Amino acid sequence: MREVYVAGVGMTRFAKQPERSMKDLTAEAVTAALKDADREVAEIQSGYFGNAVAGSITGQEMIAGQLLLRPLGIGEIPIMNVENACASASSAFHLAWQAVATGVCDIALAVGAEKMTHPDKARSFAAIGGSVDMDLVPADLPAGRSFLMDLYAESALRYMAQSGATREDFAAVVVKNQHNGMLNPSAQFGAQWSVEQVLAAREIVWPFTLPMCSPISDGAAAAVLVSSEFRRAGQTSVAVLASILRTAPVDGQARVSALAAAAAYDAAGIGPSDVDCVEVHDAAASAEPMLCEQIGLAEPGGGPDLLRSGATALGGRIPVNTSGGLLARGHPIGATGLAQVVESVLQLRGTAGSRQVPGARLALTQNAGGWHLDDNVVSVINIYGRSR
Amino acid sequence: MREVYVAGVGMTRFAKQPERSMKDLTAEAVTAALKDADREVAEIQSGYFGNAVAGSITGQEMIAGQLLLRPLGIGEIPIMNVENACASASSAFHLAWQAVATGVCDIALAVGAEKMTHPDKARSFAAIGGSVDMDLVPADLPAGRSFLMDLYAESALRYMAQSGATREDFAAVVVKNQHNGMLNPSAQFGAQWSVEQVLAAREIVWPFTLPMCSPISDGAAAAVLVSSEFRRAGQTSVAVLASILRTAPVDGQARVSALAAAAAYDAAGIGPSDVDCVEVHDAAASAEPMLCEQIGLAEPGGGPDLLRSGATALGGRIPVNTSGGLLARGHPIGATGLAQVVESVLQLRGTAGSRQVPGARLALTQNAGGWHLDDNVVSVINIYGRSR
Repeated sequence: MREVYVAGVGMTRFAKQPERSMKDLTAEAVTAALKDADREVAEIQSGYFGNAVAGSITGQEMIAGQLLLRPLGIGEIPIMNVENACASASSAFHLAWQAVATGVCDIALAVGAEKMTHPDKARSFAAIGGSVDMDLVPADLPAGRSFLMDLYAESALRYMAQSGATREDFAAVVVKNQHNGMLNPSAQFGAQWSVEQVLAAREIVWPFTLPMCSPISDGAAAAVLVSSEFRRAGQTSVAVLASILRTAPVDGQARVSALAAAAAYDAAGIGPSDVDCVEVHDAAASAEPMLCEQIGLAEPGGGPDLLRSGATALGGRIPVNTSGGLLARGHPIGATGLAQVVESVLQLRGTAGSRQVPGARLALTQNAGGWHLDDNVVSVINIYGRSR
Repeated sequence: MREVYVAGVGMTRFAKQPERSMKDLTAEAVTAALKDADREVAEIQSGYFGNAVAGSITGQEMIAGQLLLRPLGIGEIPIMNVENACASASSAFHLAWQAVATGVCDIALAVGAEKMTHPDKARSFAAIGGSVDMDLVPADLPAGRSFLMDLYAESALRYMAQSGATREDFAAVVVKNQHNGMLNPSAQFGAQWSVEQVLAAREIVWPFTLPMCSPISDGAAAAVLVSSEFRRAGQTSVAVLASILRTAPVDGQARVSALAAAAAYDAAGIGPSDVDCVEVHDAAASAEPMLCEQIGLAEPGGGPDLLRSGATALGGRIPVNTSGGLLARGHPIGATGLAQVVESVLQLRGTAGSRQVPGARLALTQNAGGWHLDDNVVSVINIYGRSR
């Protein structure tokens, strides 16, 4: 495997943007990433496009990536449409990384884009529902209601019983991530909440109130990956030290993100305590402390204590979701994984502004998708390092 | 790049099979491919799943591959859901080939599956419609009618004007492919038609009658790809000599399948005249002679003469669509590319029964998808060689 570098990143603001099209969102993110990488459209040798629900929302299935990139002048090269639920963008990134790492090409583009808003809100929720095993969905589920948050809620209740996590802990995750979102110009939300305010908000499904659930968002994010020889002199290089994609084991005994993280640490030759900043897939607030355990930031059951200690806040030992996470940065499904890449690159370059983690040298992202039994179906863990 | 071999193939019969589920179809194809390869489920190191319209038909989006493979005991490994319209299965095959060729893994599984029948037939046609640029679809198109065959018809009329191809030629393609379908137990259709009967059938859109259009089908196909060291002794080896995936150029000047074919011949170190049998993407009958030109079997404009000479029939110089092609074997969108792989492997092993091309040593498949301007959006060309 060759060394791979993230040469450029770009993203739109994440928000409800009903007036913007998939083409418009994709163009903004790709153009920004190319400019950031100081590369021309014609230099891209391979493209990987992640999306999850465009088919359900816009009716455009199957060749979305090609149609979205063509107006930018990108054709002829291999373009692959990739779908792995909420991990679609990370799956696109993983393939782009693999293409450069194995020598298939020297400059690859990874893009994730999603338009979730629809005049008929029920259609947005129904689309999200496609990420669970349809065989599990109760026949009496009201039309247009996603079943996904119910599954996250059941999982949260089990976690509370096992670890002693409380609803106050989940509210504290929201307070932290909303605070970080305030510092991120690309974030959908950002505000100074109190734990009491979060708990007093409208209940979605016990134990979650509205701000504990990731929102409906429109947006796109992109990254340009290059081989060692194609780095620009003078740029701060961000190397991809590991990119691991795993599916949940059939027996359900091990958590898929724990498996992927172990393999990623092994591939990068580091351990959890070496990491300076982390983005995890907080589709619901309860997921953050659970995932901190799974990726080794805390012992099993230690997620709540890690949170309560302040370690995962900006200024703490290991800041988590400095971008605001899915809860505040927003969660346009097929774009989320690449937004995590964007945040990691900014942090490692030292250009994350008022949410900068001082001296960050190693970053990790965890992006998961789908739901089956009591776990995500797929997980992608990437580890990035600042070199020079 | 390392040498890659197709160690095993399997497919369901292609047909309208409304009573069968995606899980059922996938299980049959994968189980057959593993048995053919003499490999266990646990030996698969990476999986690539191609599908195009399941989201629209079954509501199951995003993690279809994982959910379909899990009941077979396949988990933990990386699984990638791939979508490239009618070239989805070939795209999955391409990634599986790349994974083995670059040393990412030694045993990879490529699967394509599609369920197109739906109690509401309009939904089947609407789903197929997702493979064209939705911006091109006329606002007054009747609900549930696919626009795709209209685009193929326009293209056919232009081809007739340019090359002198006639409706009789298109009917002759049907007669040939239906004949081949009779000899293929996995084919959806197969019958002894006359040119007159084909022309007298119900008109779908001028110049096409019903048998000139590929049918609605349910089915699955799979292949197991291995590195050199993982071949079984004593098996007739089928090597993948080239696998090229290309997107249509932005300026629309060159045909995407012509570009992909040129690159594939170059990679394999052979020319069109070396090939013994070919499968092309005859989504409509007119596509076959056009594609024969694009992949170099005839000069530009020479497709009709090649057909009329009998060269592309069984027993001819270069038999095309010995399986029956999309017209007769059937076209479950996301499975079609792998059905082409199955046919090529049977031909090169010399086990294609009554449709065997005697002594076939080199085979080529062309699988294309999507439509934009006057061409497919994506094309995958694979070249296979018998080596043992």
